[in-house]
Amino acid sequence: MLGSTHGTLTTTPRSARVLACGEHGSGGSGAVHGKADSEDLDVSGRPLHAPVPDLDRFFRPEAVAVVGASDAEGRPNTRITQQLLGWAERVGARLHPVHPKRNTVFGLPCAPSVADLPEPVDLAVLLVADPLPVVEQLVETKTKFAVVFASGYAETGGDGADAQARLARTTAGSGLRLLGPNTNLNAFEHFRDDLEGPAIALITQSGHQGRPVFALQELGIRLSHWAPTGNEADLEAADFLSYFATRPEVGAVAAYVEGLKDGRGFLLAADRAARNGVPVVAVKVGRTETGARTAASHTGKLTGADATVDAAMRQYGVIRVEGLDELQDTAALLARARPPRAEGVAVYSISGGTGAHFADLATAAGLTLPTLGEAKRAELHQWIPDYLDVSNPVDNGGHPVGDWRGRKIIDAILADPAVGVLICPITGPFPPLSDKLASDLVAAAEETDKLVCVIWGSPVGTEDAYRHTLLGSSRVATFRTFANCVTAVRAYLGHHSFRRAYRSPFEDAPRAPSPSLRKAQALLRPGQQLSEHAGKQLLRAYGIRVPREQLCTSAAGAVRSAAQVGYPVVMKASAPQLAHKSEYGLVRIGLTSASQVRDTYRELTDIARQEGIELDGVLVCQMVEPGVEMVVGITQDELFGPTVTVGLGGVLVEVLRDAAVGVPPFGADHARTMLGELRGAALLDGVRGRPPADIDALVEVVLRVQRMALELSGPHTSGGLAELDINPLVVLPRGQGAVALDALAVCR
Amino acid sequence: MLGSTHGTLTTTPRSARVLACGEHGSGGSGAVHGKADSEDLDVSGRPLHAPVPDLDRFFRPEAVAVVGASDAEGRPNTRITQQLLGWAERVGARLHPVHPKRNTVFGLPCAPSVADLPEPVDLAVLLVADPLPVVEQLVETKTKFAVVFASGYAETGGDGADAQARLARTTAGSGLRLLGPNTNLNAFEHFRDDLEGPAIALITQSGHQGRPVFALQELGIRLSHWAPTGNEADLEAADFLSYFATRPEVGAVAAYVEGLKDGRGFLLAADRAARNGVPVVAVKVGRTETGARTAASHTGKLTGADATVDAAMRQYGVIRVEGLDELQDTAALLARARPPRAEGVAVYSISGGTGAHFADLATAAGLTLPTLGEAKRAELHQWIPDYLDVSNPVDNGGHPVGDWRGRKIIDAILADPAVGVLICPITGPFPPLSDKLASDLVAAAEETDKLVCVIWGSPVGTEDAYRHTLLGSSRVATFRTFANCVTAVRAYLGHHSFRRAYRSPFEDAPRAPSPSLRKAQALLRPGQQLSEHAGKQLLRAYGIRVPREQLCTSAAGAVRSAAQVGYPVVMKASAPQLAHKSEYGLVRIGLTSASQVRDTYRELTDIARQEGIELDGVLVCQMVEPGVEMVVGITQDELFGPTVTVGLGGVLVEVLRDAAVGVPPFGADHARTMLGELRGAALLDGVRGRPPADIDALVEVVLRVQRMALELSGPHTSGGLAELDINPLVVLPRGQGAVALDALAVCR
Repeated sequence: MLGSTHGTLTTTPRSARVLACGEHGSGGSGAVHGKADSEDLDVSGRPLHAPVPDLDRFFRPEAVAVVGASDAEGRPNTRITQQLLGWAERVGARLHPVHPKRNTVFGLPCAPSVADLPEPVDLAVLLVADPLPVVEQLVETKTKFAVVFASGYAETGGDGADAQARLARTTAGSGLRLLGPNTNLNAFEHFRDDLEGPAIALITQSGHQGRPVFALQELGIRLSHWAPTGNEADLEAADFLSYFATRPEVGAVAAYVEGLKDGRGFLLAADRAARNGVPVVAVKVGRTETGARTAASHTGKLTGADATVDAAMRQYGVIRVEGLDELQDTAALLARARPPRAEGVAVYSISGGTGAHFADLATAAGLTLPTLGEAKRAELHQWIPDYLDVSNPVDNGGHPVGDWRGRKIIDAILADPAVGVLICPITGPFPPLSDKLASDLVAAAEETDKLVCVIWGSPVGTEDAYRHTLLGSSRVATFRTFANCVTAVRAYLGHHSFRRAYRSPFEDAPRAPSPSLRKAQALLRPGQQLSEHAGKQLLRAYGIRVPREQLCTSAAGAVRSAAQVGYPVVMKASAPQLAHKSEYGLVRIGLTSASQVRDTYRELTDIARQEGIELDGVLVCQMVEPGVEMVVGITQDELFGPTVTVGLGGVLVEVLRDAAVGVPPFGADHARTMLGELRGAALLDGVRGRPPADIDALVEVVLRVQRMALELSGPHTSGGLAELDINPLVVLPRGQGAVALDALAVCR
Repeated sequence: MLGSTHGTLTTTPRSARVLACGEHGSGGSGAVHGKADSEDLDVSGRPLHAPVPDLDRFFRPEAVAVVGASDAEGRPNTRITQQLLGWAERVGARLHPVHPKRNTVFGLPCAPSVADLPEPVDLAVLLVADPLPVVEQLVETKTKFAVVFASGYAETGGDGADAQARLARTTAGSGLRLLGPNTNLNAFEHFRDDLEGPAIALITQSGHQGRPVFALQELGIRLSHWAPTGNEADLEAADFLSYFATRPEVGAVAAYVEGLKDGRGFLLAADRAARNGVPVVAVKVGRTETGARTAASHTGKLTGADATVDAAMRQYGVIRVEGLDELQDTAALLARARPPRAEGVAVYSISGGTGAHFADLATAAGLTLPTLGEAKRAELHQWIPDYLDVSNPVDNGGHPVGDWRGRKIIDAILADPAVGVLICPITGPFPPLSDKLASDLVAAAEETDKLVCVIWGSPVGTEDAYRHTLLGSSRVATFRTFANCVTAVRAYLGHHSFRRAYRSPFEDAPRAPSPSLRKAQALLRPGQQLSEHAGKQLLRAYGIRVPREQLCTSAAGAVRSAAQVGYPVVMKASAPQLAHKSEYGLVRIGLTSASQVRDTYRELTDIARQEGIELDGVLVCQMVEPGVEMVVGITQDELFGPTVTVGLGGVLVEVLRDAAVGVPPFGADHARTMLGELRGAALLDGVRGRPPADIDALVEVVLRVQRMALELSGPHTSGGLAELDINPLVVLPRGQGAVALDALAVCR
């Protein structure tokens, strides 16, 4: 299979364009299609809706042109033409070879150019060195789809990127949708049509990386589509994700992603999958600098800050996995398993050791193993010796598996209403027991609507019970390792729980600016960092509480302000670009008298003078009661634009980096979820007898900061806000609110 | 295989003793053998040395008795006798059946009892319901080894535990070493003798769990021994570990551990393996409560606090893995791979996507991928197109693999001095490329002393290149998943780096009490929690700095003490069982005048009166400069006795539980390693412009606390110290030391 998609690799990027590089085609950034409905934008100017591209005729065309078709022996295009002929026959498409110098190809009449085709085609596959003129012709002839195999585009940078931009400009808004360049034949592979049940649809930005998932067909798992998106000059991963999410035969989407062309496009596609209840399982490269750098050089795409990509995926229920084996196992389970009847996992084995080991790993991963009730245990002890533990894990000691008792035990466990999933680890094959156990499990799975999983622990994997009994079953989910089973089952339960609770955030996303925007705009200073005082006014414009404070320019003024603000006061030097005030000694707290205020004013201005800092004054601020110190901020992500961060404040956060990021748009529930993601979340609940913090107020601040992020980065401001850092935000005890003690705002 | 070891399971624990329960045999705690040389104890009374048991005649006996042998059709003992006959033949042992009522068994003359054997035997295998009388006879006849298959002992609790204790008492000090009860035939399996190279020796506390590792032989990995330790009434996992660590054919020990009989015994065995450079890879159940509970009910052994077991394993370089697949892959690599020539990993693939993905996972796991130098890149570009990235990962684009260039590239990468490991992920099999790549890698591996690893990504695994080329090679390490390759290679590099630096801590462990002990003993109050003042005196006895302080019983006394201690002072209520002083408002800091001290004295005593706390006085303490607040403490572990904990102080530690545990004995280097394990370790280096902390002083405190832990839990004290909690220990800037501000000590 792989061979049939493999073109010639030549030695330079430009001439490498001559032919596709087969499996190794991969992405690169291209011009962005203006697909969004311009009427439906959020306040940041980003689309709230993306139409599902109609790709039916891409995957099931009635007529196909192969431009550059060949039947000359030894030519790479000959092998490709052969593969396309076989594929066209399977999908029932008429294939038209196109070549300027041939009359026939494999006996089929050959047109000299796409303008001379005997009928309009849905899809043109371009195997030529310079596809641009052909693409121009296809636009003219109103062809629906083109696949451009040639490489040497954005992935090589420079001239290649320019050439890709020309391709993208040619197709933009034309009605012709283009896959590639630098893609391959994976979409036209030999998909088995004898397999049943919900299928996996596969999206890969590097064809080779999809091979293991595609090979799942050899284990009996159905694959319906494969979209190798290559450089994504036009059609991108998100387009295929949207489309697959609407296809009834697709049970799950598996994706290998190196980078994204457009963050919002991905979110909208993931939202569609979430709304339709279609699970998406993805490997996303870029956990590390090395991975991100290598992926970027391979695809030319944006990899995004990994924590942000991770957060975005979680917000839309995309299940991120690390290895291709996890991708296979998790996607296969999610595609095929019905929704769980209960969250509980029962572990059943013929060895107490195996049960203890698996239960340990499952529990550590967050699965719940309910203790079986007394009546159920008594029922199981009809068939299992009394001295064995059957409370869950259920240890049968081995022997009952070998006779009629084996099936009774399985059915009894499955009948327990607390059990939604039965997992049976079979560590070593021993045919008299393991074959019987496997067939009992397969038979029981046919008669239950609960999930039955088996782990076949033999490293060999050629055993009959594995190859034929287990893999032959469409009801039993079979794994090779404890870890992958645990990962997949956790993803399965997590997906269904996510799906039940899911509500699209795009429905409630703000479209029009709030009244706060006008007040905020007056405070922005393009390209500058605002003074603390101005930053706090910006917060106040958005309804975020700040201490009473006044900016003073004389000692006498400071004393007057202190009286108005109310003792005790805090005094801080103020200057537009001033950071690290504490380290300079420019913050003083707990001042209780006019004389202290007067002296402090002089001290602060003296220090500033010595350090060469030009102050715009000294802030005299209300002193706020202690609470839990948090940080809330806005940062810009290359993929997703402005994002909102919340974390625990203080010096430990700088060390432990305990923060959660949210990608707008999101609602209050998600803001709460973000707080729950913090390792130090318990601090908000009160520790060592401290009162619980006002989490509602904190959530409200996070949402108001999100509003700022969207409004102040959109078309309604010129410039806008590049960065915001509220540090600390003091969250007072429940019912008392939250106060931003300091704010650092940087304008674009 | 499994069947041959499978006995009859009956319905009650007592009658279940009739026969072995085959694979499912597992451990249970038994009486502890007094194996240690009583001359060589540390100050805590624990052995510093354990002799290696001579198990040669256990694994390779010259004569074997099978007590309860049978050739009657359908009897479980018949199958077992057959297996033992086959095994005896393979190892060249003479087998003597023993049965009171048979004349011959399978044609061999049968002795009525072990007293009637024709020759002394090395090993007796007991297949009888009540082994105790036979064991007593074997002690008489000075037999070396007995294996007791019967189950129904400690794993069932109560009477079974008593019966096990009788077995243990009978063998203790007798010269007869006993394996079991509740074990199985795994030691007498059919080990392949056609495999070469260093072997894996296997220890399992649940026979079934060893099956996947044993099955590695089917993939060409040599296994030398299998010790199924069962209930460990006498011989335990540590005995086999010690023994295997001295065997020249053993390249690595793989272990499945549910619990340990004796913590120190395990440490001494692990120390022997570390000194001999024999890697030990172990699954240890008990990460979670569920796992620990289930394992304990399965084995009756102590599981220990998981973090402590984990720390103990790391101290001795034992590689803890989670799954049996990781156990297989990691043990196989460590057994067979030669020491690395360099730490650098080169990743080589036929797809940029595969390289990016693997590099991402490898880097995230801490492997180093050195960037190949300009000259090396130019060399590689002789064979690989210029536009492909060869800086590491090396992407060859596919084609060069298919011809003579394939081998050149591999050799060139291996020749780079920065490269110690070459990893080639082969994601999808495509015979023209992948078969050639596999055989090139196998050939190159034969000619290099560097490690060559391949990941065969196909989920099928029946391909020729995998089954024959790769698995047929003893030089290429083959994996099925990226994750297991990364885990194993990290373990491999980690093991050799550990081994180079290893120095046994037992050499320097204290044998005699320090002069501090006498002072300390006077302060201990059996069964009581000491007052803060007494706790600090205990610290002072061991040379740990505490603030200047005086215990005062009157306001006037407090004022006098404050003058002596020096202003500003801290005042704290003091009482023997007093905890949470701060929450009661019983701690006041920063008192600067006699009047403040006088008032505070009255306030503290008033609060205590209202709360019904009987004070022994009020502490007037020197106020210490700020520094990094740490906690250092002693806790008792059920397996390892007293352990030392160090963590970051303050409220966040209570929430984040950022602490490291050390199992004595350990030295200063390890104390430093413990600090490095803290997530907040950077706080000690100074953040936000704070000065670096006096880490040397902190290390010294940790070592002095260790000394306390050992001396005050040993035979030199009656009772001793159950618990110690220094919180906070203020670590001052470098060169200024560390001061214990509070101490909570609980005596036994």
